[in-house]
This record gives sequence, structure tokens and C-alpha cells, in this order.
Amino acid sequence: MPARPSTRPATPTPVRPTAEAHAAQSPTVNATITAGFWAERRDVNARVSIAQGPDRLTEAGNLRNLRRAADGETSGYEGGVPFMDTDVHKWLEAAGWQLGDPTTDPGQAAELAERVREIAGLLAAAQQPSGYLNSYYQVAKPEAEHFTELRWGHELYTAGHLIQAAVAHHRATGERELLDVAVRFADHLVETFGPEGSGKPVDSVDGHPEIETALVELARETGDARYTELAGYFVGRYGGVFPSRSTKGPGRAGYCQDHLPVREAPAVTGHSVRQLYLLAGVADLAAETGEPELRATAERLWRDMAARQSYLTGGIGAHHSDEGFGHPYELPNERAYAETCAAIAAVQFGWRMALLTGEARYSDLAERTLYNAVLCGVSLRGDTYLYDNPLHVRDGHADQEGARPHRTPWFSCACCPPNIMRLLASLPGYLAATSTDGGTLHVHQYAAGTLAAPVAGARAALRVTTDYPWDGRIALTVEETGGSAWTLALRVPHWSATGWRLAVNGASAPTGSFEHRDGWLRLTRTWAAGDTVELTLDLAPRFTLADPRVDAARGCVAVERGPLVYCVEAIDQPKLPAGLGLDDLVVDTAAGIGRAERDDLPGGVTGLTLTARPRPRPEPDDAAPWWPYRSLDDAPGAPGGEPLTLTAIPYHAWANREVSAMRVWLPADA
Amino acid sequence: MPARPSTRPATPTPVRPTAEAHAAQSPTVNATITAGFWAERRDVNARVSIAQGPDRLTEAGNLRNLRRAADGETSGYEGGVPFMDTDVHKWLEAAGWQLGDPTTDPGQAAELAERVREIAGLLAAAQQPSGYLNSYYQVAKPEAEHFTELRWGHELYTAGHLIQAAVAHHRATGERELLDVAVRFADHLVETFGPEGSGKPVDSVDGHPEIETALVELARETGDARYTELAGYFVGRYGGVFPSRSTKGPGRAGYCQDHLPVREAPAVTGHSVRQLYLLAGVADLAAETGEPELRATAERLWRDMAARQSYLTGGIGAHHSDEGFGHPYELPNERAYAETCAAIAAVQFGWRMALLTGEARYSDLAERTLYNAVLCGVSLRGDTYLYDNPLHVRDGHADQEGARPHRTPWFSCACCPPNIMRLLASLPGYLAATSTDGGTLHVHQYAAGTLAAPVAGARAALRVTTDYPWDGRIALTVEETGGSAWTLALRVPHWSATGWRLAVNGASAPTGSFEHRDGWLRLTRTWAAGDTVELTLDLAPRFTLADPRVDAARGCVAVERGPLVYCVEAIDQPKLPAGLGLDDLVVDTAAGIGRAERDDLPGGVTGLTLTARPRPRPEPDDAAPWWPYRSLDDAPGAPGGEPLTLTAIPYHAWANREVSAMRVWLPADA
Repeated sequence: MPARPSTRPATPTPVRPTAEAHAAQSPTVNATITAGFWAERRDVNARVSIAQGPDRLTEAGNLRNLRRAADGETSGYEGGVPFMDTDVHKWLEAAGWQLGDPTTDPGQAAELAERVREIAGLLAAAQQPSGYLNSYYQVAKPEAEHFTELRWGHELYTAGHLIQAAVAHHRATGERELLDVAVRFADHLVETFGPEGSGKPVDSVDGHPEIETALVELARETGDARYTELAGYFVGRYGGVFPSRSTKGPGRAGYCQDHLPVREAPAVTGHSVRQLYLLAGVADLAAETGEPELRATAERLWRDMAARQSYLTGGIGAHHSDEGFGHPYELPNERAYAETCAAIAAVQFGWRMALLTGEARYSDLAERTLYNAVLCGVSLRGDTYLYDNPLHVRDGHADQEGARPHRTPWFSCACCPPNIMRLLASLPGYLAATSTDGGTLHVHQYAAGTLAAPVAGARAALRVTTDYPWDGRIALTVEETGGSAWTLALRVPHWSATGWRLAVNGASAPTGSFEHRDGWLRLTRTWAAGDTVELTLDLAPRFTLADPRVDAARGCVAVERGPLVYCVEAIDQPKLPAGLGLDDLVVDTAAGIGRAERDDLPGGVTGLTLTARPRPRPEPDDAAPWWPYRSLDDAPGAPGGEPLTLTAIPYHAWANREVSAMRVWLPADA
Repeated sequence: MPARPSTRPATPTPVRPTAEAHAAQSPTVNATITAGFWAERRDVNARVSIAQGPDRLTEAGNLRNLRRAADGETSGYEGGVPFMDTDVHKWLEAAGWQLGDPTTDPGQAAELAERVREIAGLLAAAQQPSGYLNSYYQVAKPEAEHFTELRWGHELYTAGHLIQAAVAHHRATGERELLDVAVRFADHLVETFGPEGSGKPVDSVDGHPEIETALVELARETGDARYTELAGYFVGRYGGVFPSRSTKGPGRAGYCQDHLPVREAPAVTGHSVRQLYLLAGVADLAAETGEPELRATAERLWRDMAARQSYLTGGIGAHHSDEGFGHPYELPNERAYAETCAAIAAVQFGWRMALLTGEARYSDLAERTLYNAVLCGVSLRGDTYLYDNPLHVRDGHADQEGARPHRTPWFSCACCPPNIMRLLASLPGYLAATSTDGGTLHVHQYAAGTLAAPVAGARAALRVTTDYPWDGRIALTVEETGGSAWTLALRVPHWSATGWRLAVNGASAPTGSFEHRDGWLRLTRTWAAGDTVELTLDLAPRFTLADPRVDAARGCVAVERGPLVYCVEAIDQPKLPAGLGLDDLVVDTAAGIGRAERDDLPGGVTGLTLTARPRPRPEPDDAAPWWPYRSLDDAPGAPGGEPLTLTAIPYHAWANREVSAMRVWLPADA
């Protein structure tokens, strides 16, 4: 592989708006994560998850499918879904970002580059002369006319992931082999798709959005605006494309956001990954075109998602049966679907919104989603995964047939594992951005490492030192700066809005020396090398309540500390009186939250302690000992007995030991 | 049609244990329902639901499928499921019971008999020489070897419904045409299925139980014990028959109860209709064979269903994605599946258990299920249906794409509508039974009409006069009796266990003149014609709490009156302060429950009133107005403002007007 210049202008990142984009911020920041929480998670991602990828893709048949396509075979397709190729593409994208990261171990980088080269060669060999490339249609359905089964066939979805992989690889390494494959396919799409009257043969969209955001990024990478135009056509085309078979479930139009033109949609709906990939494309287009209606659409639907459809973890998509959004505030805990991919998509959409608008809220939610709803999707060891992410696992669950969660090394529909890989590999790209006026460096996420960017006409470089999220202190040291004044903007999470402290060069920052507004703490000065800024966020653990319309959390509290949502896993708890379990405990909120002094918690996390009492099990009703309901007059007594000290761990660390009961929302006396 | 003898020995009923059965009670009772609640519902069932059946079966293609099979066509099968025939069979069964009911309008009976004759002829014509009959396999898959796709093919399930229809028709009318078809098919099954080493070619079961209970009943109807033996083989065969593709969802073994031999199953699991049809067969076999382990299995699994898996309505099966049971106490309200068919199956299973054991609890739960979870499945007009039955529909739901419930005239998988038809048509068979020692007449369900049975060696006849469940008084007048003493046993529902009153011949029954134990009130005496017994059940409306482990009902109360579960439907409520909806109200339990003096409620039901106050919507958090969670320190205030009077209606009457929000469980201050 070619040496990567150490003075690269910016981290290879999945979203790089053009210079002409109507975006508030630009991610032209060279960021590294060198220590601490995210360095550890990313190290596991690189050494274990990404490294195991080719074996998983071999075992599951994905690579053999492409081999068959390359060899012109028309039978033997393996796997239960038509989009098996996308697991390969997402792994390639992860490998691409990892290759673009200077912290990657050189030995691993060389091995990764070799595997990427092999697979890129396979893709080039499998690509048809037209540019078309899809092992399912080439091997399993060679007789099918292309792009005639778009409701379920995932052809453009698969193309989108190929394009994203190619962009990542090219952006990170400068190599063109994958990009050339993607460009040939994209050119084929440009020739194929267009509105009625355009002379293009197909006027339709994919049942699974994804191509839209991919095409915009390909345009950004190649400078070819035709791809942005095609993305704009696709984004605008949803709304009545497919015949609706049903008013509910996957058959309904809204399942794939085809119920209304997206500009008219009042709320998020349907399959949550489809919805958010579409919205990522909307945000990308809003940035590139400056169209106010597209921006308003993205803002409106993000807010609907955040305010009415989000679990405390940032997880979204309540329904199992259509992997979709439920109704507003319908957020069941035990039956949360909260697919890992949907959380990843929410982070990707959120970052596009952060760049588009410059508003802190998008990174506020993305931080929460990353630490909780995304990270729970992969084990601490990096070798097994969760697809859906419940917030409650009941006592006795482990004894039941089909007990979950089973973290497993892979899934028959394996969308989530390589999706986590690509997100974590690209994480440095989500840390910081410069204002498009060039005068401000915005720090969106906190991780120990380095940030460098052109600000106020010169290169500014900062070192970030922190043990966040375990410790609230984030120290930033100016290592390089020009002579002009510029603004350092630090995001203050909403949970710390009134509890932060700021010191500059060791002294508490006096009022007037900074501005705090809308989630951003702005310090403007003529910086000098060696200047330090220390922001201390409020990590006092807190009890959290849900909006009363979240029925599933009625009468409960959750525990949070900083960006981390906590949960109580039965395996960590003291022995309970016989017959009682986690579901029988009531938290005494007045007793507060303490720090767990234990060294046996998974991943060395900071544990918290709570006080709870068992609630008496109701005595059976003599007239109906078989019935779990009873008269209000016969209500069981209040919780009593000796208080118990419970230990809570961060939600992302749950399910890393034997299966046991777990709760995020805890019944409480409050 | 042949005249039915008015002195028929017993109501044609779906469950008629043999004289040798090891059952505590026998349904050899001649029962009619002539007035009141169930007479009205059954009149609608006969005049509207059943009468419309042939049109629906024509429109949906079911009858054309059979026509094609009869004509030897091998293409053109209509419908999305392989068991389209069963809708026909269940309608035939409903028609059979209706023909056996002397209250059926003679004109309608003649028309029904004619349609049954036509369809029976079609079935006979479609039947293959082997006895095999299944339009899906004959028309759509003529090349498939029979009984090789039993995991999903529903061949025996379909055969089972054919057999049940034939038994109903023969039992009700004495006609043999349908029965002959069923016997030919059953004989084919006897020749085909058996354990390894039996010389039978197929050693397997159906992925959807149903054949088991059908075969036992066919044995009862024909006296041919081979069918009971085959049922016993099938019941015992589950447990490892099918390769398991998954640990969850429809792919898991437990989905079709194939995870364990049923005698070893600790709990109900999987697809709830499959589970309960299997258990109906287990109960039937326990009665016919006297095997203690089978009886213990049925008792154990019924109790698990009742105590840990039942909604307040009696509905069961919490999950949408596999139409199955969730975990114990996992009973989400908004996302309740509670399929109408599962409730029907629970009633059918419960009746078998009532006869097997003689215990009142089974009819106690069946009553609740009938009045609530079953009856909500059909509109008051009898022309539209619900498939799944939520206990909560949220504010604003009606405005959403895919808003539910849409009661619809039929479904693409139309199992529920003809299932309701057959249950309501057979309802007189569920009212009463005699003890197998011949000395007691047990009244299980209360409906105005007549009951006649052989008791203490002579015919006893009673007239039942009641406006139950609107009024708690149930008057029974002895119209005919022999000279010997016998016992009249009246079921006292669990909710009235301490609140009933009893009068005999107008005078309060003194202690010692009766026995009250285990849900039965037993009066033993030498009855004389003209004797009256008046039982008054306690219909004081009551607030009900759930077991605290039912997370979905935490902090809520429900309202019940007698066997009726009530709900609050938004359409009946006063205008709320702007922006507030049903989900913003908190019930003041101390204000009690009143009687609604309104004549605008659907179906003329008795409405109840509650007092509630709006809960203030939390003020947005300045730091995160987009986030629905907040610190406990920032909890919104208590409900306040002017109290509102809410109207509640019986759950079975909901969704009979325009779609609006609805709640069974109401947030309460209790």
C-alpha cells in the first residue's frame, strides 16, 4: 500500500461536503484517537471484529457468491437474503477507514490492504460489462430483468454500499481499484434511472434507501455532479412508487417511506434503517443543494425521531415485526427492537445534520447513541453481536427456549456486525469540524488524541487528554496555531448544561471570556502554543424519568452518568430472598446513587450502586389463585424488608457474561 | 333438510366425550339461548356473519380453489396461504352448529342447509380416490408429494378443520355427506401416519396442531377408536420432529411446540393458536384415555397460560412477530397481539378442561375470554372483524399511516372470522354439563334460555331468566324434574366470590342449605316443578390492579364490572384542554366508579363513569427541548385542574365507531 502522508489534510471521513455546500461546518479536521475509551473499543474493532470479517464472510458464503458471479455461475447462491454482497461492502468500507487511520498497527494494515485488494479484484471480476454488479441477481436470478424487483430486491441498496466502500477506500488510500468498480456501476445507474420523459428506461427507487447518500458521497469524491443529481431524483421519487399491499407491517407503503414524498412526511415511520438512510441522503442533498425544504424535512424528521421515538439509549425502532418505528412514545423495553443498524444509521444521519446546521443537539444525541445503543451491539471482546437491543430481560428468561440475548458471531442477515465495524473505524471523522467561515474549530465528541485543522487561515493543532466518559475532565492543549484569533467551540452535553466548569491555562474562566449558548461553549482568543483549556463536565450520576407518555417507563427511573445509560444486570446483584428476582425490586430514590467499589465488573467499567427493597409478591387470591389480576382493594403492600445494594453497569457492557435478567428502567418509589 | 327432533337428547356441541371417558362432567345437556346478551350476539352471528360467509369465501377465492380441485385443474390457486380451505371448513362447522340450533330462523336454516349441501358436494367432488383433499396441494402444488412439507404446509391442520366441520354437520343434522368425506380422509391418514416400525409410510406431525382434537371428536362421533389412537400418536410425536432453523421467531422449534414432547413442556410457548389447539387435543385424549400425565400436562399448561400469559381480557399471545406467547408477564398493551383465534382456542381448551376436571376455574376464565377477548374480534353489526386486539390505542393514532384498528370484512389470512362464527354458533354447548355420576347439573355460563338434561335418572329441565351481564340476577325455574334429589351447581365467578346472594323460592337461602366451594355453589334437594333459584352476582364496578410483574400495567388501574372488562374510548369523552388527549389523564380512584346515564353508547351497553384529571405535560428542558427524558429533580407536577368525568364502555364494544384512542389500563393516582 502507498504510504499515507502524515500531513494529510483531514481524517478520511464518510461525509465530506463540497466546498460549495450549504453547510455550517466542514469536517476538514485531521483527528486521531490515541488513548482512552474509544481507543480501546476501536482497537478491539480493528484487531478482532474487522480482522475476523473475512473468515465470517467466507463461512457465510458471501465471498463464494461473488466468486460464482465472477466465474459466470448461475446457481449455488448462498444465504437467505438477496443482499449478501452488502456484508462484504460494509466490511470493505470498515477496512478502508481503518487503512486511513494512522493509529492502525502497520502489520495489520498491510494484511488488511492485501485482503481488500483480493476482494476488490473479485468485485472487478464479477462486474458485468454494463457496470452491474450483484451476486444475487447474477447467480441466483440470472433470468430476472435488472431493476424490476426494486421493492424487495435491494439492488440499489447493494450498489449504495459498494459505492460507500469504494469512497472509503479511495479517500483513505488514494487507490482506485474499488472506486473504478463503483464508478462503472454508478454510471450504469445514471444511464438507467430517471423520471418519465427523461429517456431513461427505469423510473423507480429501491425499497431500501441507501443509494442516495452513497451517490452524493461519490459525487463529492469524484467531482461528478451527475451522481448528486441522480440522488436528488431518488430522494424525490419516494411516495407512491410501489403498490401497497397492506395498511400495516412490511406490506404498507410507509415501511419503505413510500407513503408520501419525503418532503411532505410529517413524522418518521416504517423500517427504521430505511427511514434513516433515506434521511442521511436528504441531509446530504440539503447541504449540496441548499434547498430549504430538504433541510426543513431533515430537521423535522430528526426532531420527531429524537423527541417521540427514541429510547433512553438512543435506540430507535420499537417493533420487531417490521423492524420499524412504533407510534410516538411507544417504546416497550422488553420488546424493544432497537436494531443496532438503526442506531448506527441515526449517528450517521445526526453527523450530517450537525455539519449542515452546526447545531450541538445532533452531536448530543449522537454521543448518547454511540455510547449506548450502538456499542451494546458488539461484545466487549469484539467477537459477538446483538441485532436487537432490549432494555429489559426478565427473570427466568435464561431458562426459556429461545432465550435472548444470545450474542452470536454472525447472523443469517448479518447487516449489523460490519455496520458496527465501519462506524467505529470511521469514528475519528465524527470528532470535530470547522465552521465554514473558517474561524471556529468545533469539538463534537471527546476522545483522547489529536485534532488538527485549518482555522483562521493557519493550521491549528490540539492535543486532547481525557479519561472521559469515566472522568469528566477534558483537557485540550494547543500545540500549534497561527497568529490570528480563532474560536474553540466545545460541545456541552444537555445533561451538563448547568454543571460544567471551565479553566483556561489553569485558571477558572471568568464570565465574559467565553460564550455558552445552544450547547456550544465558545472561547475566542489569539491562542498560543501551550495554552490549555480544561472543560469539566458534570458526571454526577442521576436518576432519570421518562415523558409520562412513555407508558413502558411509568413508575420507573433510569440511572445515567454523563453520556452513559446504566442498567442493572442480575448477575451483579446480591442474593435475593428466595423466589424473588430483579423484577421484584423497587428502587429507593431518596437513598441516592453511589459508586460501586468493585473490580469484577465487565470491561473495568465504573459501576454505580443503588438502594432497593423487594416488593412483596401478592398473596394468591383464594377465589382465583390462577389469575394475575386483583381488586384495587386487595393491593399488595409497599416494598419492605432490608434494603439491598444493587450494582448498575453501563448498558453497553451488559450481556458480556452468562445470560441473566437486566433492567434499564427500574420500578421506583418516586 | 330433515326435521330435527325437538326432544333431541343434547345440544349438538363440539366436545362430546364418550361414555367411557375419564371426565368429571358430560355435556349431555339440551341448552338453548333465547334472549338477552348472547341471544343478540348469536342472532347477529347467524343473520350477518354466517350469512355473509359464502360471499366472502367466493370473493376471496376459497370456493373457486375447491372448484378447481374438483375439476382437476392444476393452476390458478387463489390466496396467499396454503390453508384457504380451512376458512370453508370453519364456515361449514359454524353452519352445522347453527343448523343444530332450534332457535335458528327456519328460513335461514333452509338456506344454510342448501349452501352446506352445495359445498359438501364440492368437497366430495374434489376429494381424491385416496381420500386426500386439499385444494392447495391439488391445484397449486400437484407435483409435491403429500405430507412432505408438514412444517409449513398445513395439510393435517386443514384436514382437522374438515373433520370438525363434518362432525358438527353430522351431529347437528344426522346427514352423512360431509362426514363420509371426512372419514375417507381420516382413514387415509390412519393408513399413512404412524411411528417408525409401524409400517406406516410417514412418521411426522403437522407444524400447526389441530388434527389431534379433530380426530378424537371423529372417534367420538363414529365410534371408531383408530382415530383416537392416531390422535394419541400425533400428540406424543411433537418434540424434535422438525429441524430447528433458529432460536427465536417462527423458525424456532417451540413456535410449533416441537421443542419438547408435550408431556415434558413446563410452560406454554410459541404460536399461541398452535399451542392451544394442541392442548385441546391433549385434554381430549386425557379424557378418553385417563392417562394422568396427559391430564397433568393440560392442567400445568393451562395454569401457566392463565397465571402468567393472560391479558385482563383473557387475550393471549403477546407477540406480533410470531403470533406467539411472550415471556411470563410480558403483556404489552399497545402492542398486544391477542389474536382473536387464540382467544377462541383458549375457550375451546378451557371447556375441555372443565369437562375433564369439573373445576369451575376453567369456565371462569372462559367466561372472561368470551365476553372480552373473543367478542371484541367481531363488530357489533357482525360484518367486520379484528385479527389482533390491542388494549391501548394512542392519541393521534388515527392520523397515522396504517392506523389501526381497521375492522375489515375479511383478511388475506382469514382464520379469525369463521372461527368466531363457529364458536358463537356452538355457544349453547358451553353452558352446562352433568356430572358423570349423574347427580348434578352444573351451570357453567349464564344465558337466558333453557337447560334440560338427564339428572338422577330422570329428565330435569330449567328455564333461565336473566339480563346478565348487565344485571347480576340469574333466575332459574325448575320446569321438569324426576322424583329423586339432585344437585344444582351454579358457578360463582371469582370476582363475586364474596359478594353473591342466593334465594330459593323467593327466600334467602340459609347457611347449610347449600355448599360453596371451589367456585361452585351446590344446592341439593328433591326439586319440584316451579321451584326457583335466584343467584345474584356482585356487579359492583371495580378497579383492578395487575400483578406488579406485569410491567405494562404499572401505575395503572383497569375498570371491570362482572365479567366485563371496560375501556375508555376517546370518542366518548368530554372535550379536553387544548393539546391534551386520553394519554394525558390520570384517574382519581378515590372518586370511585359511577353509572353512565347515556343512551349514545354503542350497542346499548351499560357505561360507567370515572373521574380523572389531566397530568401537566412536562415543560421542555431548555438544554434539550428535543428529548423526552429528564432528571428526576425536574419531575413534572401532579395532575391538577378541574376533574373530568370519563365514560368507559365494555372492551368488546370498542372500535365500533370512528377510530379513536382507547385505553384499558388507565394511569391512576393509586
